[in-house]
Amino acid sequence: MSTTFHVYDTTLRDGAQQEGINLSVADKMAIAPLLDELGVGYIEGGWPGAVPKDTEFFKLAAKELDLRNAELCAFGATRKAGARAADDPQVQALLDAETPVVTLVAKSDIRHVERALKTTGEENLAMITDTVRYLVDQGRRVFLDAEHFFDGYRFDAAYTRSCVLAAYEAGAEVVVLCDTNGGMLPDWVTRIVTEIRAETGDSLLGMHAHNDSGCAVANSLAAINAGCQHVQGTVNGYGERTGNADLLSVVANLELKLARPSLASAEATGGLADMTRIAHAISEITNISPFARQPYVGASAFAHKAGLHASAIRVDPDMYQHTDPSNVGNDMRMLVSDMAGRASIELKGRALGFDLSGQPEALARITNRVKDAEAVGYTYEAADASFELLLLEETNGGRPRYFAVESWRTIVERPGGRGTPAVAEATVKLTAGGERIVSTGEGNGPVNALDYALRKALVQVYPELEEFELIDYKVRILDSQHGTDATTRVLIETTDGKVSWSTVGVGPNLIEASWEALSESAVWGLHHRGVKPL
Amino acid sequence: MSTTFHVYDTTLRDGAQQEGINLSVADKMAIAPLLDELGVGYIEGGWPGAVPKDTEFFKLAAKELDLRNAELCAFGATRKAGARAADDPQVQALLDAETPVVTLVAKSDIRHVERALKTTGEENLAMITDTVRYLVDQGRRVFLDAEHFFDGYRFDAAYTRSCVLAAYEAGAEVVVLCDTNGGMLPDWVTRIVTEIRAETGDSLLGMHAHNDSGCAVANSLAAINAGCQHVQGTVNGYGERTGNADLLSVVANLELKLARPSLASAEATGGLADMTRIAHAISEITNISPFARQPYVGASAFAHKAGLHASAIRVDPDMYQHTDPSNVGNDMRMLVSDMAGRASIELKGRALGFDLSGQPEALARITNRVKDAEAVGYTYEAADASFELLLLEETNGGRPRYFAVESWRTIVERPGGRGTPAVAEATVKLTAGGERIVSTGEGNGPVNALDYALRKALVQVYPELEEFELIDYKVRILDSQHGTDATTRVLIETTDGKVSWSTVGVGPNLIEASWEALSESAVWGLHHRGVKPL
Repeated sequence: MSTTFHVYDTTLRDGAQQEGINLSVADKMAIAPLLDELGVGYIEGGWPGAVPKDTEFFKLAAKELDLRNAELCAFGATRKAGARAADDPQVQALLDAETPVVTLVAKSDIRHVERALKTTGEENLAMITDTVRYLVDQGRRVFLDAEHFFDGYRFDAAYTRSCVLAAYEAGAEVVVLCDTNGGMLPDWVTRIVTEIRAETGDSLLGMHAHNDSGCAVANSLAAINAGCQHVQGTVNGYGERTGNADLLSVVANLELKLARPSLASAEATGGLADMTRIAHAISEITNISPFARQPYVGASAFAHKAGLHASAIRVDPDMYQHTDPSNVGNDMRMLVSDMAGRASIELKGRALGFDLSGQPEALARITNRVKDAEAVGYTYEAADASFELLLLEETNGGRPRYFAVESWRTIVERPGGRGTPAVAEATVKLTAGGERIVSTGEGNGPVNALDYALRKALVQVYPELEEFELIDYKVRILDSQHGTDATTRVLIETTDGKVSWSTVGVGPNLIEASWEALSESAVWGLHHRGVKPL
Repeated sequence: MSTTFHVYDTTLRDGAQQEGINLSVADKMAIAPLLDELGVGYIEGGWPGAVPKDTEFFKLAAKELDLRNAELCAFGATRKAGARAADDPQVQALLDAETPVVTLVAKSDIRHVERALKTTGEENLAMITDTVRYLVDQGRRVFLDAEHFFDGYRFDAAYTRSCVLAAYEAGAEVVVLCDTNGGMLPDWVTRIVTEIRAETGDSLLGMHAHNDSGCAVANSLAAINAGCQHVQGTVNGYGERTGNADLLSVVANLELKLARPSLASAEATGGLADMTRIAHAISEITNISPFARQPYVGASAFAHKAGLHASAIRVDPDMYQHTDPSNVGNDMRMLVSDMAGRASIELKGRALGFDLSGQPEALARITNRVKDAEAVGYTYEAADASFELLLLEETNGGRPRYFAVESWRTIVERPGGRGTPAVAEATVKLTAGGERIVSTGEGNGPVNALDYALRKALVQVYPELEEFELIDYKVRILDSQHGTDATTRVLIETTDGKVSWSTVGVGPNLIEASWEALSESAVWGLHHRGVKPL
């Protein structure tokens, strides 16, 4: 594959169109480095000028985002009909975003030009030409998304073609053929891309697919096979309606099945082998539950129900899987056998400095505890510190104890009618350093107040706690068909300025689950700092 | 398309291999009529003899299942190596199932024959020949699933081909080419099916795809385009690992895009237009949450968020969807989001019965309020009821008021050390029906307790509330880089047994955000029931 092949991610813009996704500036700032780590070439950050949060994102990104490989792209539209590109504030906002690349969306289906844009085919061509040329003159690389390209081509190929050619003529580096309504089938894509390729010579063509016919990945591959050298998609296939092409599946197919390297080299970034972790990390940020059946990275993607083939799979796993799951950072799982469980717990223990290979009984106990805990909603994948405390508890070390809690209480009150702010306070009673301590904290909410009260109590005995700060707090409602009766899982992340660690708490009561995660965080932090337990 | 085209559903057998699916006999008895209603030609019910529940299912089905169109198929394996088909109890169980069709699975990859089955290629061919012939002699139609066909063909085409030909020779009506490991790509399928077709003449070939490369639907279509006249799949794409080909997408693509009718006629059964209802009914039985992004039948499949297109969608919906959603019994939906402008708010208002077209000032006010609200974390796309209350507030109707809250308070307490359960209670003070009411509730957690206290207070004046039940509760921490200081968004869904509605609350305090959503839910529910406000 030529080095000009572009993997173009639009999770932050088109992916964010998905029902239920609402990305804050902080979310985007957290996702972009993960995309860079995956090794995509281009990251479309949003639509500055049109969406205020996106304007803010590009401002912050220019100052604080340090990408190792990917280029940041600002997305926007061609100039308004009957105006000058230089006078169009939306076009100006694209320049203000200060990205090396600007991706312009332009209409290329004459029906959309006339009926949605309400202008003439000729004016639409002028809008393409002027806007591309203006941005190129301002020193930008310009990619052009030809919206509704395939539907337009099937209706009036000549007009659609003239839009593509006008963009190249004006200096666009790539024209991206968009299946905006997502209804194409691979054979149709092959035919149309082959035809348009015959007109566009060596210019770079791209593909942007949606999954409405269930063929987004296949349509992307069909376009690439027919000569496209730029492919757009989103992580986990996020996007409006049925979503965009899942960029992870596209890239994994290219690299593993078609021997076409498309990501930055693994030395430069995490690459394919980190794909599963990155996919899950992004789903934590979007707060969209990962789809277990997602190809390559899903929790079930390499899970085998024991039965017919169980023993054969163990002997000869390659005969039962289309690719080695470690290629994409995933694992084979045997759903009934506990073999996989023990092995991965031993491995995970080793990563944390516990050699369990010589302790079969401890390993069995730990495996059972993890299974029981996961069955009621715990997850240790994103809570290494809690997992380490569990290991300490079941091995020679024993779980360190720094304090004994007598009781805690939190009160949230809105002392007046609508509009009156609510207040939260918490009281913690515990024994530490030989003393009984009663401490009260206030906060924005009950968990914040509890966190504050616990810290205030402990810091009297353990001054190290002064440096601990809670930096992330996540809540997931499991089994949400039971309304407020459902089980709650809380994940928190704490830092002491040097390292950060994650703990988990689970229970029917959100506050109780939060308390569990908060107190485990304090224990792990003190243990890690080498503080002597009680 | 010839009338011999087979749509073959394996939801009850291969679909049930999915992680998290465990079908009882009653479940299968409930799903089979839905598949028949959809209009599939064949329903694979399970593996009698190997799975006791399946033996029982076929017994019950023979007595009680009344299919209008579909034929029931029993699935099983070829005879054991070195035995006679007539003496093999597993083969006997297939006859005992008394189905018109028996589908046999046979190995066709020489590596699996030698390494998993541990027999010779020759004996495997004899197993195919004997078992097919025996069942045909007993009056069964026999379909043969050639397991690992594609991987086998790529490794040793000659052996794989000999398995296919042996099956036809012995009287098999269909040989089904299985991509058991799911790793094929459409181009590979096209090439291999074309090659095998050249050897098999007019005999019926089938396709059985899995989705490990994200191409199961496209691979099924590629096989059909290359001459397969039988396609297997599962409803909602259920199945082991990444699942089987989603039969719904395959069939909808065939009927709507390729003009190849494949289901029984709509007069005979529900057909395509009932597909969405049937898909959701089956997901109720499997207890697997429907995937919102599923092509054709997903809740989001025809949901539009982009403000960019909203005004045009209103005028010309066909320009923005790949097929009319009513073709598959689904609906277009407009989502309100911060990317939306006035047009989509007007459209959404209309869907809720508000004509805003003649009220430009109200429309502007509402648009601004939605924008402001979304900027601080509200989202109305999943909270129609809160959006409707906002519309009422800004239009002539005014927001209905049923109660005036004086104050509320919730206390969560763990009265002892580790292991002691926490308790939660809440007190609400309000005025309703001319009375001051003070009510206290207990619950699993603070929100549950508040919900209970509010309900208990209001039901004294509004007995309608007796029927309201909270059925879903979701928490999302926005901007979670700020730990427990972050903004919290709560979405709740309530039902009165007839309709369900969603409300949203946002704030730095989780309890306060929950209260907002809870009280809006009560207000909307009472308004919807036509209860007179204060």
